[in-house]
Amino acid sequence: MFREQIKVLDCTIRDGGLVNNHDFGHRFVRQVYENLSKAGIDYMEIGYKNSRELFSSSEYGAWKFCDDEDIKKIIDGIESNLKLSVMVDVGRVNLDDVRPASDSPVDMIRVASYVKDIDKAIFMVNHFVDKGYETTINIMAISRDQGPELDEALHQIESESKAEVIYIVDSFGSLYQETTEWLVKRFQDILKTKEVGFHGHNHQQLAFGNTIEAIIHGANYLDGTIYGMGRAAGNCPLELLIGFLKNPKFDIRPILDLISEEFIPLREKLEWGYIIPYAIAGMMNEHPRAAMALRKSKNKENYREFYESLTNTGLD
Amino acid sequence: MFREQIKVLDCTIRDGGLVNNHDFGHRFVRQVYENLSKAGIDYMEIGYKNSRELFSSSEYGAWKFCDDEDIKKIIDGIESNLKLSVMVDVGRVNLDDVRPASDSPVDMIRVASYVKDIDKAIFMVNHFVDKGYETTINIMAISRDQGPELDEALHQIESESKAEVIYIVDSFGSLYQETTEWLVKRFQDILKTKEVGFHGHNHQQLAFGNTIEAIIHGANYLDGTIYGMGRAAGNCPLELLIGFLKNPKFDIRPILDLISEEFIPLREKLEWGYIIPYAIAGMMNEHPRAAMALRKSKNKENYREFYESLTNTGLD
Repeated sequence: MFREQIKVLDCTIRDGGLVNNHDFGHRFVRQVYENLSKAGIDYMEIGYKNSRELFSSSEYGAWKFCDDEDIKKIIDGIESNLKLSVMVDVGRVNLDDVRPASDSPVDMIRVASYVKDIDKAIFMVNHFVDKGYETTINIMAISRDQGPELDEALHQIESESKAEVIYIVDSFGSLYQETTEWLVKRFQDILKTKEVGFHGHNHQQLAFGNTIEAIIHGANYLDGTIYGMGRAAGNCPLELLIGFLKNPKFDIRPILDLISEEFIPLREKLEWGYIIPYAIAGMMNEHPRAAMALRKSKNKENYREFYESLTNTGLD
Repeated sequence: MFREQIKVLDCTIRDGGLVNNHDFGHRFVRQVYENLSKAGIDYMEIGYKNSRELFSSSEYGAWKFCDDEDIKKIIDGIESNLKLSVMVDVGRVNLDDVRPASDSPVDMIRVASYVKDIDKAIFMVNHFVDKGYETTINIMAISRDQGPELDEALHQIESESKAEVIYIVDSFGSLYQETTEWLVKRFQDILKTKEVGFHGHNHQQLAFGNTIEAIIHGANYLDGTIYGMGRAAGNCPLELLIGFLKNPKFDIRPILDLISEEFIPLREKLEWGYIIPYAIAGMMNEHPRAAMALRKSKNKENYREFYESLTNTGLD
């Protein structure tokens, strides 16, 4: 029943880190690494590789920067086949900071890019391939970019980039199954030599449903996070994805342990998940930043006013 | 863009009532009725019509019984086009307690039945049609009954029952989009003269996604509950469904108000939603009763043990 080509990538520390400035402790990240290894997950994305010239180490935790030395301390002594990934944003990484893959514990570098920055993303990806890394391009905010610019970007990626996997990233949690199906087919039509990936956001409780839809239509690289932890409404819950996939290499129990022991207590301190202002932002195909600001204000449960603020934007 | 035939039924008080023994106060239910009316929802299911000989009035609230007099107090003086529905379970209602529709504030009676009880359900439905009610048959636990018994039941419903709508009820929150699509098509193939309905449960965060899938394939009667309130993981959130449907008759704002003012405080006292033991039960295609018992015990976060208790059932 299972499709052997499917690869599951956990990005809890990277996307979940957007909730806490990537300030996860050493013990916590090591526990996540150990349990994901036991669960048979294919990749763990451990953070962003940002330039220290752009972000202050006093404001952000280690996983905003992902120094190889910090990563080595996490994995030291743990038996594992889990590959490690880091994400880079266009314009936020110093390429000289990235050592050749043969000198690094990192296996894969994923370049996050808007459609408009695709030339830069291709340049970066090819640089990382030349250094020996597996690579992906993750096209963010895809629900805003489904027209001819997307087609052009995909054609350019197909002809110019060495990336192996191109991800559909539903940054705003706005896709429905029909749009997901359409995008996967569009990607496959143009990207003849690449795999398609899917990264959902859960604003409308559709991250898992859309991931299944992407699987049905042939996407083979799938992102999830433990207990759905991630920015705003969070991501596709890894535990649900593993429960759905029938590959016997996966064991859900070490993930259940992480939720029981680490993520239930963490959720008491940090907020993510199904929260109405994020759902409204998803319905409206809007970035969740206004909803995130609302949740930090005293009006955090004033949904009607928030809804009207998004519908009455004064455009004419 | 919208399909005019689609009808939305809110069953918050009925399915949500399974969380609190249907003990919602008069003011609360009246507020729900008023706001659902303003939102343009088609039906509100206000509870079960159970025999008082089977359930004690001291243990259960008014919405376990749905006396016409109690319903009249809820709707008195509120301008509304909202139709009212009650649910009956096979074997739990005294048919003589149900007055003719012309003497009752109730518009629709929905008969909940397992496949095995379908003869009784057809008898009851025909009785209610003869009394002047709109009717549906809601086939529960459908994820356990997808074989020849289901086909036989559907053929019998088509030829013998006067029900207008037949619902697919995913009691265990076990369906995925592919099984939902298969069921909707199967129902339509056999039920040539009936509409198909869909009632999802949210154990795997798929109640909304599966409802969309049912819509895509032609189901026209759709259940939701406010903020997803319902037994165990709850139901398809009404607010998401209204956000998805494009019919201009719907206004999401009165539903957002209900969530802000009533359901956020209520959720502090009562538990429903995405909770790991319910997700595990959904993956396993099991009734959530064991998970509900776990949530009332001191081991409520011990997911591994619970998972193993469901996988090692001693069957041979």
